[in-house]
Amino acid sequence: MTNVAIQSLLEQVAAGDTSPAQALDKLRDLPFEDLGFAKVDHHRSLRQGFPEVIYCAGKTPEQVGHIAQSMFDHGSTVLATRADEACFEAIRAVANEEPVYNRVARTVLVQRGELPATMGSIAVVSAGTSDQAVAEEAAETAAAFGNEVDRIYDVGVAGIHRLFARMEQIRKARVVIVVAGMEGALASVVGGLVNRPVIAVPTSVGYGASFGGLSALLTMLNSCASGVAVVNIDNGFGAGYLAGTMNRV
Amino acid sequence: MTNVAIQSLLEQVAAGDTSPAQALDKLRDLPFEDLGFAKVDHHRSLRQGFPEVIYCAGKTPEQVGHIAQSMFDHGSTVLATRADEACFEAIRAVANEEPVYNRVARTVLVQRGELPATMGSIAVVSAGTSDQAVAEEAAETAAAFGNEVDRIYDVGVAGIHRLFARMEQIRKARVVIVVAGMEGALASVVGGLVNRPVIAVPTSVGYGASFGGLSALLTMLNSCASGVAVVNIDNGFGAGYLAGTMNRV
Amino acid sequence: MTNVAIQSLLEQVAAGDTSPAQALDKLRDLPFEDLGFAKVDHHRSLRQGFPEVIYCAGKTPEQVGHIAQSMFDHGSTVLATRADEACFEAIRAVANEEPVYNRVARTVLVQRGELPATMGSIAVVSAGTSDQAVAEEAAETAAAFGNEVDRIYDVGVAGIHRLFARMEQIRKARVVIVVAGMEGALASVVGGLVNRPVIAVPTSVGYGASFGGLSALLTMLNSCASGVAVVNIDNGFGAGYLAGTMNRV
Amino acid sequence: MTNVAIQSLLEQVAAGDTSPAQALDKLRDLPFEDLGFAKVDHHRSLRQGFPEVIYCAGKTPEQVGHIAQSMFDHGSTVLATRADEACFEAIRAVANEEPVYNRVARTVLVQRGELPATMGSIAVVSAGTSDQAVAEEAAETAAAFGNEVDRIYDVGVAGIHRLFARMEQIRKARVVIVVAGMEGALASVVGGLVNRPVIAVPTSVGYGASFGGLSALLTMLNSCASGVAVVNIDNGFGAGYLAGTMNRV
Amino acid sequence: MTNVAIQSLLEQVAAGDTSPAQALDKLRDLPFEDLGFAKVDHHRSLRQGFPEVIYCAGKTPEQVGHIAQSMFDHGSTVLATRADEACFEAIRAVANEEPVYNRVARTVLVQRGELPATMGSIAVVSAGTSDQAVAEEAAETAAAFGNEVDRIYDVGVAGIHRLFARMEQIRKARVVIVVAGMEGALASVVGGLVNRPVIAVPTSVGYGASFGGLSALLTMLNSCASGVAVVNIDNGFGAGYLAGTMNRV
Amino acid sequence: MTNVAIQSLLEQVAAGDTSPAQALDKLRDLPFEDLGFAKVDHHRSLRQGFPEVIYCAGKTPEQVGHIAQSMFDHGSTVLATRADEACFEAIRAVANEEPVYNRVARTVLVQRGELPATMGSIAVVSAGTSDQAVAEEAAETAAAFGNEVDRIYDVGVAGIHRLFARMEQIRKARVVIVVAGMEGALASVVGGLVNRPVIAVPTSVGYGASFGGLSALLTMLNSCASGVAVVNIDNGFGAGYLAGTMNRV
Amino acid sequence: MTNVAIQSLLEQVAAGDTSPAQALDKLRDLPFEDLGFAKVDHHRSLRQGFPEVIYCAGKTPEQVGHIAQSMFDHGSTVLATRADEACFEAIRAVANEEPVYNRVARTVLVQRGELPATMGSIAVVSAGTSDQAVAEEAAETAAAFGNEVDRIYDVGVAGIHRLFARMEQIRKARVVIVVAGMEGALASVVGGLVNRPVIAVPTSVGYGASFGGLSALLTMLNSCASGVAVVNIDNGFGAGYLAGTMNRV
Amino acid sequence: MTNVAIQSLLEQVAAGDTSPAQALDKLRDLPFEDLGFAKVDHHRSLRQGFPEVIYCAGKTPEQVGHIAQSMFDHGSTVLATRADEACFEAIRAVANEEPVYNRVARTVLVQRGELPATMGSIAVVSAGTSDQAVAEEAAETAAAFGNEVDRIYDVGVAGIHRLFARMEQIRKARVVIVVAGMEGALASVVGGLVNRPVIAVPTSVGYGASFGGLSALLTMLNSCASGVAVVNIDNGFGAGYLAGTMNRV
Repeated sequence: MTNVAIQSLLEQVAAGDTSPAQALDKLRDLPFEDLGFAKVDHHRSLRQGFPEVIYCAGKTPEQVGHIAQSMFDHGSTVLATRADEACFEAIRAVANEEPVYNRVARTVLVQRGELPATMGSIAVVSAGTSDQAVAEEAAETAAAFGNEVDRIYDVGVAGIHRLFARMEQIRKARVVIVVAGMEGALASVVGGLVNRPVIAVPTSVGYGASFGGLSALLTMLNSCASGVAVVNIDNGFGAGYLAGTMNRV
Repeated sequence: MTNVAIQSLLEQVAAGDTSPAQALDKLRDLPFEDLGFAKVDHHRSLRQGFPEVIYCAGKTPEQVGHIAQSMFDHGSTVLATRADEACFEAIRAVANEEPVYNRVARTVLVQRGELPATMGSIAVVSAGTSDQAVAEEAAETAAAFGNEVDRIYDVGVAGIHRLFARMEQIRKARVVIVVAGMEGALASVVGGLVNRPVIAVPTSVGYGASFGGLSALLTMLNSCASGVAVVNIDNGFGAGYLAGTMNRV
Repeated sequence: MTNVAIQSLLEQVAAGDTSPAQALDKLRDLPFEDLGFAKVDHHRSLRQGFPEVIYCAGKTPEQVGHIAQSMFDHGSTVLATRADEACFEAIRAVANEEPVYNRVARTVLVQRGELPATMGSIAVVSAGTSDQAVAEEAAETAAAFGNEVDRIYDVGVAGIHRLFARMEQIRKARVVIVVAGMEGALASVVGGLVNRPVIAVPTSVGYGASFGGLSALLTMLNSCASGVAVVNIDNGFGAGYLAGTMNRV
Repeated sequence: MTNVAIQSLLEQVAAGDTSPAQALDKLRDLPFEDLGFAKVDHHRSLRQGFPEVIYCAGKTPEQVGHIAQSMFDHGSTVLATRADEACFEAIRAVANEEPVYNRVARTVLVQRGELPATMGSIAVVSAGTSDQAVAEEAAETAAAFGNEVDRIYDVGVAGIHRLFARMEQIRKARVVIVVAGMEGALASVVGGLVNRPVIAVPTSVGYGASFGGLSALLTMLNSCASGVAVVNIDNGFGAGYLAGTMNRV
Repeated sequence: MTNVAIQSLLEQVAAGDTSPAQALDKLRDLPFEDLGFAKVDHHRSLRQGFPEVIYCAGKTPEQVGHIAQSMFDHGSTVLATRADEACFEAIRAVANEEPVYNRVARTVLVQRGELPATMGSIAVVSAGTSDQAVAEEAAETAAAFGNEVDRIYDVGVAGIHRLFARMEQIRKARVVIVVAGMEGALASVVGGLVNRPVIAVPTSVGYGASFGGLSALLTMLNSCASGVAVVNIDNGFGAGYLAGTMNRV
Repeated sequence: MTNVAIQSLLEQVAAGDTSPAQALDKLRDLPFEDLGFAKVDHHRSLRQGFPEVIYCAGKTPEQVGHIAQSMFDHGSTVLATRADEACFEAIRAVANEEPVYNRVARTVLVQRGELPATMGSIAVVSAGTSDQAVAEEAAETAAAFGNEVDRIYDVGVAGIHRLFARMEQIRKARVVIVVAGMEGALASVVGGLVNRPVIAVPTSVGYGASFGGLSALLTMLNSCASGVAVVNIDNGFGAGYLAGTMNRV
Repeated sequence: MTNVAIQSLLEQVAAGDTSPAQALDKLRDLPFEDLGFAKVDHHRSLRQGFPEVIYCAGKTPEQVGHIAQSMFDHGSTVLATRADEACFEAIRAVANEEPVYNRVARTVLVQRGELPATMGSIAVVSAGTSDQAVAEEAAETAAAFGNEVDRIYDVGVAGIHRLFARMEQIRKARVVIVVAGMEGALASVVGGLVNRPVIAVPTSVGYGASFGGLSALLTMLNSCASGVAVVNIDNGFGAGYLAGTMNRV
Repeated sequence: MTNVAIQSLLEQVAAGDTSPAQALDKLRDLPFEDLGFAKVDHHRSLRQGFPEVIYCAGKTPEQVGHIAQSMFDHGSTVLATRADEACFEAIRAVANEEPVYNRVARTVLVQRGELPATMGSIAVVSAGTSDQAVAEEAAETAAAFGNEVDRIYDVGVAGIHRLFARMEQIRKARVVIVVAGMEGALASVVGGLVNRPVIAVPTSVGYGASFGGLSALLTMLNSCASGVAVVNIDNGFGAGYLAGTMNRV
């Protein structure tokens, strides 16, 4: 609820069209709808400029379906992450058009309305084959918010010539997302080679002392290259979303 | 060394102006200068668009002075971080003009040349009095790279009305930096209220189970608000630098 | 065994009704009953004012049934936590009346006797959908001990207006329980807005660097708001129980 | 700012006494005063029922003096924690009456106005000699908020008869604070013996694998006795404050 | 291989009965037998005074059977730990007499030969129902090595009167083993009440911040009572074995 | 307070020599003396068979002196650990005879009364030069409780022949204490070579990933040799004390 | 791509056989082949002297088969690690000859071309039965790269005579790999007895406080014996590969 | 003591020149000399092929001087690490020739006798200025053992062209030591570019979440490049020593 809305409300009070008590009520009457188990925040697109996203992990397909239904009813774009086949089917059942299901990314997308204007492309760079699911989640998320996405996969530092062969392509992007597990060194190397913001996503790929992504996380936080920020382990969605906020006009 | 430069070199080879062996040598002849203890990277401003920065911690004032001298000789802007009085004096001794020393931020700045064009302002939001040194480092760094900076300090979540009184101001920024120690909850709250990228900086402020900033770091990484990325504990410089890359035209 | 009982025993000795040796024996003859695998402490309700509770995790349904039987035989209220369907059935089989099974909370309740007098209501506030099981365990526990419970769910800080819409309701409570996973910031925000004790319950909800609830736990321990105490990760029972002790006349 | 105040403001708008724009401004005009380095929250006593407290660690004596001055100007009770001699002198210099300085607790107190009504006493129980500073901070804080405090020190579980000799005294309290370092077992033992809320404060006392209080913290979080909540390591203030909220009528 | 044996070998060399080269070979010919996948150390009973033990976790029933066979062939007592039904059957199949299978402890025992003389009894004290498997492993191991074992179960500190009712019994033992999970406080309390060595066994029982037994482990290591030593988490065998070495004449 | 004493008290009640109320008082009148800052437990020698020990760390010399005075007044043996020169002087000032100050161990000893009978000697085995302070603390403690102590120092596994040259000597002991920092492997090796209980003491010696003794602690807890128990990091006193309980007749 | 190749390319440019633009393209045209999901690096054998290896964990059998096919097409030796039966079958299906499948090591090998010359043998020493899978992975890897491998298994320090019986054999090796879980002490002991490089491999074998191999890892990093380096937990492949680089002429 | 020596001893026994009892004594009479506080192992150079090294940290200058004296008396090369000025002077006082003191590396060297033959050079590669002390310790150690050392400093991955400019030089080495703090990515990048063994040394350089070198340590252990092994944090000596064992003929 914006200052404009509050000012307008106050003006109605001044004009006698709304009583003080009614105004107080309205100040509290915020735009969310109670589904019993989760509040869907339809005005979030106004407040934050992006649609609410369904994080499917820990929700039943029924819950996912109900949330999607409610979002469709309000004409929202629907993006679901960590969606298995059952969640995909639950969304499909309530959608008017065929949703796009990316099985590697485990994302479901039904695009509605106009996409926001952007300033450039977003590069998603990943180190190894096993980082691909997270990289795809980042890429799908960024695309869902209207960004052109350029995928540069499997260019980890153990064979650094592969990275250099793609640097020109990476340098064209306005924002760079780097996805890497194991030791996560790719973020530092890319960070030292571009002059655009780098969002580093540690992945839980690895074994032994990788400790479920902790090693890559620490590496990325301690990057000796400036211009690198980090999101949570395996949080491809967060990286794609954040890149979108950076790339918006 | 850019592709343009390499292409030009290759053309000289094709034209017979440069022998293959000379070209091979030149490919290796990269623009850095060896001071014996540290390589100052004068072309970094070309490669990354920002000047090299002197991180004073762990360097003697003499070393800091030599590095600054070398940078002044190349006409660079000089920004020094974690600078105590002795480092400030060492830079002052070799500068042609009076450097700006921010004692809270512990930064020294001598600005040279034109500043890059930016898109908006950068808000630096901090939770408590004790986070101010890190917040100032972020603010000074962003300013050194040509950004307009808006400081909103001491608005931690324990008295959340203080934050709301300043939200309009925060929402005007193109990038928001949030600096907080202890439990670091401010980043999540701000992240849920703005639609611009939020860079979270955990600080080592706190005691007991704050474990030198680890608690705030984990809080920020796990932010339930999307659009939040994290830099290292106390890394105000990193946040200011990264915000600068986001805000550049 | 209270001082009253010991005094009374000593008086019997003084009166010659009990020999010193018998008294020594009786001092050791404390009121628990040995079921072979677990001692049910029927006098706990006297000693602590609350009935013993069956923590079902790690117990077989048979063991749960036997413990419940023994408690019913002594006329106790029976509250079982972490109870799956099999445990529920085991209790049902030995109960005289239909037990109340809350499948979200995984609690089973058979209320007996009078409930203790209380001073006000207890608010259970949760951040997200996935925290609901723990929140329900807290709510059911508090209710089992005679408290009026007010549930305020899904008001996490990422959409903080949802919380503010419910603050008046929260402020009415005598004790506030806050249940949150991921970064756990809700406890700090609520702690800064109420002047009643806040019991924070970190949940293991989250992924990546949430480390099974550790992130939320540290956040809550480091809360910059005063008046917040923390119980173990996912320990809804502990929070409900503790709130009950605070709310008793 | 309460609902009452907002309603009253809205009524002024309705009556034409305040223009909508002025009302919008006033909604933002919250009661804090900017000292430049820290916002003192004079209305906090209204909002939370307790005065603001000066946490001296990391503040210069000058800053402490300025904050105290501002608080005295508003007639507040002043409680300062982690106060060394210099901070004590800084407060003394601006106070009209002699502040009470507890050198063990490192607290400074200048009491003003009426104390809130309470329901019973608060027992502060500590395990060993070295836990005394934290115990005293808890006790002084609770007393500053108008509570009667009963100190029971040096009753650690290694000589458990010392604890039992004092149990009757402990059981008389409405709230029990248990302060212990090393293995922190005292909280569990006391928790099993009383039917009132127990606030456990781990201390950083110990060596080797006590890891600066982590061992005691984990012990207390995992207490097998119900009715125990935990505050941060060495956070005597937090425990005293929380106990005060529980003990208020 | 004892000094006696070496001396005897050297005497044979001196007597010309053994050549120097043969002696060198014999010095290397130590008494173990290679089964291909594991060396069974039949002379361990001589070297350490106790039979080798089969740790079944991570071994196939076939491997367990072969090792047991080899041990039976040498007339050894066979004790197997972490033995599931399949391992039990594998041992039974190669044993001449019915092995004793303790399903709670998951131990299999076939006793052979004379038991060593002991000095007193060993008390095994456990906190809760869920610690029983580890407690039984300790008890069975101690018994297998000829010790009289006294089991005192379910006497955790949350209801400390249950412990005191059994203290006289505990004090009769020459060595006390304390088995506890969650916060592990029982070891400290017992350690303060007896003047015999206490072996503390943390168990992985608990949830949340018990971190798989780490909490109990740290508690026990930091015990404020002297005379307590700790073995690995869930290591009932190690405690029983160690108690046996202490109790041997 | 023993059962005998309670029985005797009860008999006085039966005989009318003590009223029930007086008896209740006496049951609480346990034998400790309040010095204001610490309770000295003079009857501990009866209850546990060993004198109370002064742990000087965190105590002022004045406090140490007062505690020692009180112990001398009761004719106790006084052992102080972690004692610097000032603590030594404080004890010396109140002692009737010259205390023994071991500067490496930082222990002060004034022996009084008869020493308990023991069964054999105690071997203290240390890995390197830097472990010597902890080893000496263990040795002095064991000696203070009447044990014959055999010191075998600087026999770490990096030059394992040094250990083997001393094994015969080590095997003669009834209890073996192994003190080692860095990787702590010595405990496992010794544990595999003796058939007596081994008490392992990790030390905080080392650097880098030794993490203040954590590495050695984990090594020792995970010892593949049976018969090894562990005390806290640097806890030489605990090891010496525990060894004494094992070696007593 | 070597300097020779670049020089040759530059010479073609000088000769006019290649245009500058073509040369720039070729500099980027590095020898890898894109399979869509993973880049196989056929020239790695030239660049690093060893074939690429297929790490099967996290890859589908189909992916493994495709990668193997592509490698066979280029005439490479194929080594696959962490290969289950399905991966083995996938490789077998595309191989011209029967691959060697070591079920303990979970490695698949198809040897092609000449093996590099080596300087000596490699000893693989393991502590216990459960470390064998990792030891075999190390041994198979070393053998695949042309090394003679000597296996010395089950010689853990709990029965150190077993190790000494094999030391002469171990000392013959040019490089020694030590594989151990639990407390990992074997690496230090071996490191103190040989004068050749020791590669230590911690394994995740153990329970309780072994924390998935962390204990052994820390032990090995802190080895008091010089000449020991460590690879990741369970990384038998890495150890075998590294030993190969050391043993190459 | 070698097999040859034992065989010779046995032959003396056979010849009657040595009695069995004398032989047993001699088997124990190993070549070390007891200085009281540390055993200097003069035959270590025979057993391991390298001289004993004095690790000065935690030793007094007097102790360092005595150890050095004893080593000089046996004609050993003396290398001291972590030597401050006082330790340097202590060695100088007992040396016949001027020792070489490297103040950056904090090493003292007095070379004696012939150096072992080596196979190639050793490259020491470091990331930043602050890693130089550790890099120099590695370089000095390797040189002390007769290796030619090539220093390549300040080539961290944030400006990766600096590394590539030196790769040809690095590739000439037989063994590569990589020293890096912060995120430690340099080891992976170098590991992917050379076909010789890489020894990675994490340094404690960094701040915030670098946790005293833990971040770099984990990065290096998880290196996605094969052929990398890791030594302890800041352990330049260990890396230099190990490189020496690899480079020996």
